[in-house]
Amino acid sequence: MAVTRTVTTVGGQAVGNTDRVREILSWYESDNPGTKTNLSRLLNAGRLAGTGKFVILPVDQGFEHGPARSFAVNPAGYDPNYHFELALAAGCNAYAAPLGFIEAAAARHAGEIPLILKMNNHDTLHDEKDPIPAVTASVGDALRLGCVAIGFTIYPGSAHAQTMYEQLREAAEEAKACGLTVVVWSYPRGTSLSKEGETALDVTAYAAHIAAQLGAHIIKVKLPTDYLEQSAAKKVYESVNIPRATLAERVKHVVQAAFDGHRIVIFSGGPMKENDAGVFDEARAIRDGGGFGSIIGRNSFQRPKEHALKFLGTIMKIYAGEIK
Amino acid sequence: MAVTRTVTTVGGQAVGNTDRVREILSWYESDNPGTKTNLSRLLNAGRLAGTGKFVILPVDQGFEHGPARSFAVNPAGYDPNYHFELALAAGCNAYAAPLGFIEAAAARHAGEIPLILKMNNHDTLHDEKDPIPAVTASVGDALRLGCVAIGFTIYPGSAHAQTMYEQLREAAEEAKACGLTVVVWSYPRGTSLSKEGETALDVTAYAAHIAAQLGAHIIKVKLPTDYLEQSAAKKVYESVNIPRATLAERVKHVVQAAFDGHRIVIFSGGPMKENDAGVFDEARAIRDGGGFGSIIGRNSFQRPKEHALKFLGTIMKIYAGEIK
Amino acid sequence: MAVTRTVTTVGGQAVGNTDRVREILSWYESDNPGTKTNLSRLLNAGRLAGTGKFVILPVDQGFEHGPARSFAVNPAGYDPNYHFELALAAGCNAYAAPLGFIEAAAARHAGEIPLILKMNNHDTLHDEKDPIPAVTASVGDALRLGCVAIGFTIYPGSAHAQTMYEQLREAAEEAKACGLTVVVWSYPRGTSLSKEGETALDVTAYAAHIAAQLGAHIIKVKLPTDYLEQSAAKKVYESVNIPRATLAERVKHVVQAAFDGHRIVIFSGGPMKENDAGVFDEARAIRDGGGFGSIIGRNSFQRPKEHALKFLGTIMKIYAGEIK
Amino acid sequence: MAVTRTVTTVGGQAVGNTDRVREILSWYESDNPGTKTNLSRLLNAGRLAGTGKFVILPVDQGFEHGPARSFAVNPAGYDPNYHFELALAAGCNAYAAPLGFIEAAAARHAGEIPLILKMNNHDTLHDEKDPIPAVTASVGDALRLGCVAIGFTIYPGSAHAQTMYEQLREAAEEAKACGLTVVVWSYPRGTSLSKEGETALDVTAYAAHIAAQLGAHIIKVKLPTDYLEQSAAKKVYESVNIPRATLAERVKHVVQAAFDGHRIVIFSGGPMKENDAGVFDEARAIRDGGGFGSIIGRNSFQRPKEHALKFLGTIMKIYAGEIK
Amino acid sequence: MAVTRTVTTVGGQAVGNTDRVREILSWYESDNPGTKTNLSRLLNAGRLAGTGKFVILPVDQGFEHGPARSFAVNPAGYDPNYHFELALAAGCNAYAAPLGFIEAAAARHAGEIPLILKMNNHDTLHDEKDPIPAVTASVGDALRLGCVAIGFTIYPGSAHAQTMYEQLREAAEEAKACGLTVVVWSYPRGTSLSKEGETALDVTAYAAHIAAQLGAHIIKVKLPTDYLEQSAAKKVYESVNIPRATLAERVKHVVQAAFDGHRIVIFSGGPMKENDAGVFDEARAIRDGGGFGSIIGRNSFQRPKEHALKFLGTIMKIYAGEIK
Repeated sequence: MAVTRTVTTVGGQAVGNTDRVREILSWYESDNPGTKTNLSRLLNAGRLAGTGKFVILPVDQGFEHGPARSFAVNPAGYDPNYHFELALAAGCNAYAAPLGFIEAAAARHAGEIPLILKMNNHDTLHDEKDPIPAVTASVGDALRLGCVAIGFTIYPGSAHAQTMYEQLREAAEEAKACGLTVVVWSYPRGTSLSKEGETALDVTAYAAHIAAQLGAHIIKVKLPTDYLEQSAAKKVYESVNIPRATLAERVKHVVQAAFDGHRIVIFSGGPMKENDAGVFDEARAIRDGGGFGSIIGRNSFQRPKEHALKFLGTIMKIYAGEIK
Repeated sequence: MAVTRTVTTVGGQAVGNTDRVREILSWYESDNPGTKTNLSRLLNAGRLAGTGKFVILPVDQGFEHGPARSFAVNPAGYDPNYHFELALAAGCNAYAAPLGFIEAAAARHAGEIPLILKMNNHDTLHDEKDPIPAVTASVGDALRLGCVAIGFTIYPGSAHAQTMYEQLREAAEEAKACGLTVVVWSYPRGTSLSKEGETALDVTAYAAHIAAQLGAHIIKVKLPTDYLEQSAAKKVYESVNIPRATLAERVKHVVQAAFDGHRIVIFSGGPMKENDAGVFDEARAIRDGGGFGSIIGRNSFQRPKEHALKFLGTIMKIYAGEIK
Repeated sequence: MAVTRTVTTVGGQAVGNTDRVREILSWYESDNPGTKTNLSRLLNAGRLAGTGKFVILPVDQGFEHGPARSFAVNPAGYDPNYHFELALAAGCNAYAAPLGFIEAAAARHAGEIPLILKMNNHDTLHDEKDPIPAVTASVGDALRLGCVAIGFTIYPGSAHAQTMYEQLREAAEEAKACGLTVVVWSYPRGTSLSKEGETALDVTAYAAHIAAQLGAHIIKVKLPTDYLEQSAAKKVYESVNIPRATLAERVKHVVQAAFDGHRIVIFSGGPMKENDAGVFDEARAIRDGGGFGSIIGRNSFQRPKEHALKFLGTIMKIYAGEIK
Repeated sequence: MAVTRTVTTVGGQAVGNTDRVREILSWYESDNPGTKTNLSRLLNAGRLAGTGKFVILPVDQGFEHGPARSFAVNPAGYDPNYHFELALAAGCNAYAAPLGFIEAAAARHAGEIPLILKMNNHDTLHDEKDPIPAVTASVGDALRLGCVAIGFTIYPGSAHAQTMYEQLREAAEEAKACGLTVVVWSYPRGTSLSKEGETALDVTAYAAHIAAQLGAHIIKVKLPTDYLEQSAAKKVYESVNIPRATLAERVKHVVQAAFDGHRIVIFSGGPMKENDAGVFDEARAIRDGGGFGSIIGRNSFQRPKEHALKFLGTIMKIYAGEIK
Repeated sequence: MAVTRTVTTVGGQAVGNTDRVREILSWYESDNPGTKTNLSRLLNAGRLAGTGKFVILPVDQGFEHGPARSFAVNPAGYDPNYHFELALAAGCNAYAAPLGFIEAAAARHAGEIPLILKMNNHDTLHDEKDPIPAVTASVGDALRLGCVAIGFTIYPGSAHAQTMYEQLREAAEEAKACGLTVVVWSYPRGTSLSKEGETALDVTAYAAHIAAQLGAHIIKVKLPTDYLEQSAAKKVYESVNIPRATLAERVKHVVQAAFDGHRIVIFSGGPMKENDAGVFDEARAIRDGGGFGSIIGRNSFQRPKEHALKFLGTIMKIYAGEIK
């Protein structure tokens, strides 16, 4: 992927936002310069700087699944500093984590990598059918810790979805007024959905659209299967004949659902996988379907650092178009 | 419908509000000049400017029903810009949408068409018998995005109606203080009502009245059938012999229920219809019953743009009295 | 009833508050001059000015029962202006209505008659056993609309009574600080009470007492029957032998329960009645029992205006002592 | 009980706080001078001034039980002024009542007797197993009405106890910041307790301790029986052999539970009793057990004033040590 | 344990923070100097000053279990002053208690020992399966009472965990902004956990991690057993072969779960024990596993003062390395 800049040069070298970054920023014309600045920081960090592509390292699994399940396989991950250093060394666009992890290492690594403060989190010590995360940090925390964005999880389909949407609305309004970027994890879940439905194509596209309508700048969803959950939707998918056989087609559909591609949509990697080739194929599908990148947690920090760097490097090459 | 102005001329041409607009504004005497100004903007935009009639384009179906069900049939609609342009080209009085859609295109189209920010929205990923939408935007959002009005949905009949009324009350007070107009979607729904009862004449008239009492400037209801839901009401309808055989009679009754016609009541078009003639007949009935117009979403954006423009043009001609 | 003024004269004519008004105001010694001023306005408006008696026109039935059930029998009542004009022509002390009705006509009739803004309302589209009205207006609304009082409904006996009391507490504190008067509709209702118990003497007296303890200036209750609902209370009524055979005796007991007659207690008229003589007898009983008057909605606006004026005139004469 | 003052004299007469009052005030060293001043006012009012003993007149029974059950036996009690006058004539330390009763007579009796505003109240029109009172007044009300203290009821053992504790916490913090004193009625009640358990010794001591930990300056509990409710507690009472055979022993234990006697604990009189001697014996037990006095409602205002004055006079003599 | 200081001397004596204290403070680099100062006060108080080890006296059992169960065995404990004096004489790092106990004695002992205000508390008068403590004090209270820290209890596993996390979040943000330290009691409890699971190793480690992610500076958990509760976690513990046979190994694992040892984790002593040697062995295991110390309530104040001082002295010697 060629990275071109149309205007300014310093010492004969093009500087400033690339044409692609400018194009992406143009989709967020309603935002204030503060928010555009922080979005630009995300777009201009790491090895994919200027390409409009993203690889983000998220580490909230300690909270979400427990510390041993998350870090025992690679105990370096117990240390909050490890993830900053991993994200930095790998050339990620950003590192996302809950309050404690950010507080524990943000000062030491001040300014080294864009930070996303995960503002709400959910643990698995209590079982519930219709989950709702707890709000565990504030926009004020994001500002005092030097973050460029807040991250907020919603569970469309949960009986508590209304509450989550309203919490997000309030946080997003405050974040935007403070010049922060808003990243939304949109994960369908709850008693109204079947297990298979949580990653159904129609449901995933719907979840991406809801996040976009709620004002997200960046949307994170899971990779969709070709299953269709809702009968009223299924009828449309079949009558209009929306292509969904390949993963790239499904990614394309989800990206379209997010304002015809005018919102940044990235995809999560899911659990640690044995087979790297499968993950690389997913990255190719995301790229070929017009997706904006990946957010890869467990597949990054649950393997030795050197393996992780190589693994992430390959994914970045795929997004950069250096590997087919 | 003749559009007359009693007072001022510029270059021999009458300017300023028409007599009808002045009459309508006189019903809102308690409002501040800011709110009257924005109401005047709604009354003076598009092809029906000055007539006191309305055709509004609402596009919240992506949130309410999902993106594919809403836009797959005419994929141009995935793009937020499309609807601004459609509303503008068709000569609508206003365009109404949730936060994300407005944010995504309001700056590009700044000032081109009056905007209504849909402040609350409901999705269909979670099933519930007594629904309540989530508040997804604020009055502050409406102001920063250049909107002339907030739009708010209530579901009279829901077990959560009290909460919605109180959310609306708070939003409406703030909106009015800021010089915005308040548009209320009043859709009866919930376990206390039968499915047929949701569009019953008595229930629709009641829903319009509640919206008016809650301080709405503009009220949107569904077209009522001649069914009567509540037995205590039915007794009155039959003893007083309220005419309800024709749609025009029913529209007239609903308009009367909204402060004897002193509140603007518009009617929704419902799902995409095969038969345009049926929609045109509905518009005639709305016009003849003293209704103030239509709010037409799916029948507008779910057909190719040229068809939509022609379709909306016909409806506007009906309201303008250019077609019988 | 002689109306006497002890002090000031203008052109030989006694002016200022009558002795009775001064006496009544003396019961509200803790209130600020603003609240006393608005209470004085209520006491000095209409045909009963200066007598300490009240006939108030309330029109919230459109919200509470639906528009057709309320206004179809006399369709003039659909128009918000009608009720202002009816109250004014009849010489009522005040007109009470929800936000929408007040907003729709307050400017046109500014200052013509004291206004009471009904701050909470309940509709009958949703059925519940333990009702709670929605708060539909604010003290700020009352101030901007020129009202002299807020009106607030509580349902003692409802499982939600605590919430209503707390809403009232907050509104009343703000209203008093702003110099407004507080009128409380106290209507026992809910699963803990039998249907007959809702108007039982013990329950009605209790409801009046609760309203007084919550800080109401004016209390509205229903006329009580001689039924006794609560066994612990019944024992006292019977052992102390509280007179309750006649309506006047029961009114007297309720007035006593409201701080020994040191709070203004008025009684509601109930549904439209065939038999005017029955209503007049009720007014006599209220008068003879030391009640402060009536709040008469449906019996006023559900008959032709001229009938209503004559009907209300007779009631006022009864209160003024011009008719036995 | 000798009342001694160590320091100042005016005209040869010792003035200022007595040694006992100074000792009691020393337990509240963390409070600001405003709160200490109001606590001193309570300790220096009425016939027990300077002794460190209390007899308080509370009249919230109209709200809690209904007006007829409370006042019909002595109808003078319907009048709010009556209780101010009774408390003053009897030489009580304070008069405690809900908002309405205080508002109705505080101005006329301004400064005559220390007032405690009962900030929350419960009625018996609605039955519930786990009760929670409604908050019916504010700290701001206490200040504008010249009160020296707020009174707040908690029901430890209720499923809603957490809510009450949090309401009290908020009110107490505000009251203390405004220099008011905090009086807590701590009445165990709810589905987790047996009826007998509500006045069990272990439960009463626990209730007093909770009130003290919540920051109460003065704690009101019911007189405990020798019953023990909670098995874990019972084991300790029996193994340590805590004396509980006599009422004085039980009072002593409850006082000890309230910070080893460093919080003022007073006891309620319960329902109107036939047998005055029994009440006097209770007062002796309170005195001998180191209790700080009584709060006596129904036994005061449900008998003719002269009887009440004599009755209260005897109790005060017991507390003053003038009667054995 | 040698206590070394690298830099400053006064009169030839090394002063200022020890190297170990500086190391610990370095983990809290995101905190403001105010919070670091208060954390330093905790690290520099008592007999373990400068060692980085803690023995804290907590006395909230009167609220949590009732006064007699807590203090009857050593009645000196009813007096709030007793615990200040015990903690001071024993050389504890801090004394932690609810509002009432702190208010009752903080002024007399001002500055003598660092204070932790327990901001929420739970009583056992009401039984519930999914407990939630009541918030019983504020950050403002901690400041006005001279405390160095707030203490907050969460129950991971309770159905109300989300609420507790959000209450903690809000309190912690305010506390940190005010320069206070945040101590979190993290006690798994609720219907989703078995009784054995409450102290399971996986659950305890998870609870410590959650507290750390919520921004706690100091974390208090119970000593874990070798039981594993959650099957997904169990699989990891067994496959990775996390050592858990000895208590020291389990302590080490929990400390690792709290940011790889970069958060202070202390362990609670549990109920009064017959066998002191067992407690000392636990202290050795905490020390050898890298734990930061103990918080010992009942084993301290439920024995005679001299015994308690000796007992605590032995534990401190263990932590200081003076006893093997």
